[in-house]
Amino acid sequence: MSNKRTEISELGEFGLIDHINTRVQLKNSSTLKGIGDDAAIIDAGDHVKVVSTDLLLEGVHFDLAYAPLPHVGFKAVAVNVSDIAAMNAIPKQITVSIALSNRFSVEAVDALYSGIHAACEHYGVDLVGGDTTASRSGLVISITAIGEAKKEEISYRSGAKVNDILCVTGDLGGALVGLQILEREKQVYLSNPDMKPELEKYTVVTGRQLRPDARMDIIHELRELGVVPTSMMDISDGLASEIFHLCKASNVGATIYEDKLPIDKQTYDTAVELNMDPITCVLNGGEDYELIFTIDQKDFAKLEKHPDIHFIGHMTKPEEGKYLVTKSGTAVQLKAQGWKHF
Amino acid sequence: MSNKRTEISELGEFGLIDHINTRVQLKNSSTLKGIGDDAAIIDAGDHVKVVSTDLLLEGVHFDLAYAPLPHVGFKAVAVNVSDIAAMNAIPKQITVSIALSNRFSVEAVDALYSGIHAACEHYGVDLVGGDTTASRSGLVISITAIGEAKKEEISYRSGAKVNDILCVTGDLGGALVGLQILEREKQVYLSNPDMKPELEKYTVVTGRQLRPDARMDIIHELRELGVVPTSMMDISDGLASEIFHLCKASNVGATIYEDKLPIDKQTYDTAVELNMDPITCVLNGGEDYELIFTIDQKDFAKLEKHPDIHFIGHMTKPEEGKYLVTKSGTAVQLKAQGWKHF
Repeated sequence: MSNKRTEISELGEFGLIDHINTRVQLKNSSTLKGIGDDAAIIDAGDHVKVVSTDLLLEGVHFDLAYAPLPHVGFKAVAVNVSDIAAMNAIPKQITVSIALSNRFSVEAVDALYSGIHAACEHYGVDLVGGDTTASRSGLVISITAIGEAKKEEISYRSGAKVNDILCVTGDLGGALVGLQILEREKQVYLSNPDMKPELEKYTVVTGRQLRPDARMDIIHELRELGVVPTSMMDISDGLASEIFHLCKASNVGATIYEDKLPIDKQTYDTAVELNMDPITCVLNGGEDYELIFTIDQKDFAKLEKHPDIHFIGHMTKPEEGKYLVTKSGTAVQLKAQGWKHF
Repeated sequence: MSNKRTEISELGEFGLIDHINTRVQLKNSSTLKGIGDDAAIIDAGDHVKVVSTDLLLEGVHFDLAYAPLPHVGFKAVAVNVSDIAAMNAIPKQITVSIALSNRFSVEAVDALYSGIHAACEHYGVDLVGGDTTASRSGLVISITAIGEAKKEEISYRSGAKVNDILCVTGDLGGALVGLQILEREKQVYLSNPDMKPELEKYTVVTGRQLRPDARMDIIHELRELGVVPTSMMDISDGLASEIFHLCKASNVGATIYEDKLPIDKQTYDTAVELNMDPITCVLNGGEDYELIFTIDQKDFAKLEKHPDIHFIGHMTKPEEGKYLVTKSGTAVQLKAQGWKHF
């Protein structure tokens, strides 16, 4: 090693990932898609296997001061299932590895696994393996999910075309607003342990943060309707950041409309209460685990009446850039502000 | 949660794994084998996918005081490849997730990945995905390996039959002895940083600890010779412990012979220097990542002349128990003493 020291913060999370990925070469014919999408695609003869993995650390991805262990277990599975959904595939198996410090009892492990099992049941996946080890510090959870699809069903990030309609599911910004509420109440509790946290008003947004649900319901409905999205991702880093990824991978631009952006009333009201701009929460809030996808215009009629799919804009030529048209009709350039752990 | 608190140490690592696994139910028809072997087996039409995962933490599984980052990267891949080998399958893809504290520079990440890439090259596997995140404490590495085999090529732990011949590859105990040397030299260095560690004499054993090699060479040779082991595992927790696992899964007993146990001269000499019993190192040393397998007697002639396969005993009826016959001809009961992280 040379003596040069480059801080990881100089590159940022996406920069570090790009830096690592430039050296990767693929050699096996069964590797149909490696790094660069929500999941890898591996040939399995008459179908493909879809593989995604996530590493979650206490104190970075979850805070056991307010996240109940069953919710942590459920969410750890859900975020992986969401990556499989984002490829338009059906999850089938997961492996779960955990590292535990001696602060955790067998009862705590059972609580964590009760959430993992609930998620396996909910998504119809089998827990097929894993690793269990000691940790010097907090809880570490690593999950790998394996899904299946026909080759022609897979939706890559790179398939969006000019004039495709840009869709998102559900509503956005809730997980970020929920996190702010949980952090606020934690600080109140820490400064005065006799104060009871006020969470009853905020169950929608705290639920979005603590126990998100991967949108497998949408994936199954798209199949029933015969719609294969031309491109798809899940919204884990924030809508604006995902639009940047989609546009880059597909070599297109995008225009979205403020008045089409879906936001839940409680998310809106709570954002205002917290002096946060609700639209900024929608654009840059992470961890909603909704889906963003593009469809060919010919498929619009099939989805038009769906109560939980929102048509927020359309794809443009790459040189037209990425714009948000505000309610007043002004086009403002979108900025990607992904979720940063580093 | 009730108020009862059961310490994980009361169950131990294998006890905790058993405890977790009792609640697992498999529902998907593509799950051919879940928890309970070196890897899970997933149906892929004309073949099967073999999936294994490991979670490695700084301070628990490796010590950067003496383990160079390229070796840590290589070993992290090798231990997963070893699990795929243990099913008699060929590894094809891996995902690598890492968590890093800000103590790590980009150059350190590059050093780690240089070892990961070297292992990918060595074993012919493609790096297809992963996750990169921040850590509050040390380095965390989670790797999932995916292999392939024909269904009839898979060797489960459960296939050993009475009178099968018990084989091990390579030599054993080296990784444990190497660890003791590295720990000794670390203590010398900590007490006097001007002392240069004396490691030249011990390159075989320290190499076994720092940069083990999964025995894919043996897997390829077994195929060329037309031998499918009736059962197989890799030796990660120690020979005695793995024999207990094989015997339990296959419902057989085993008799092994002290004079057949393979030990390298440097391992033997260094164990003696450290006042360790060399045979105890062979029986209970972990992390050698050699293979233990059983063959039908009809296959013995095909392997008899192999320079790196040792025939250490045979399988017996379960009621005959598990015995080591010493050089003096005494049969002593084997004790399983697995590698304990908790």
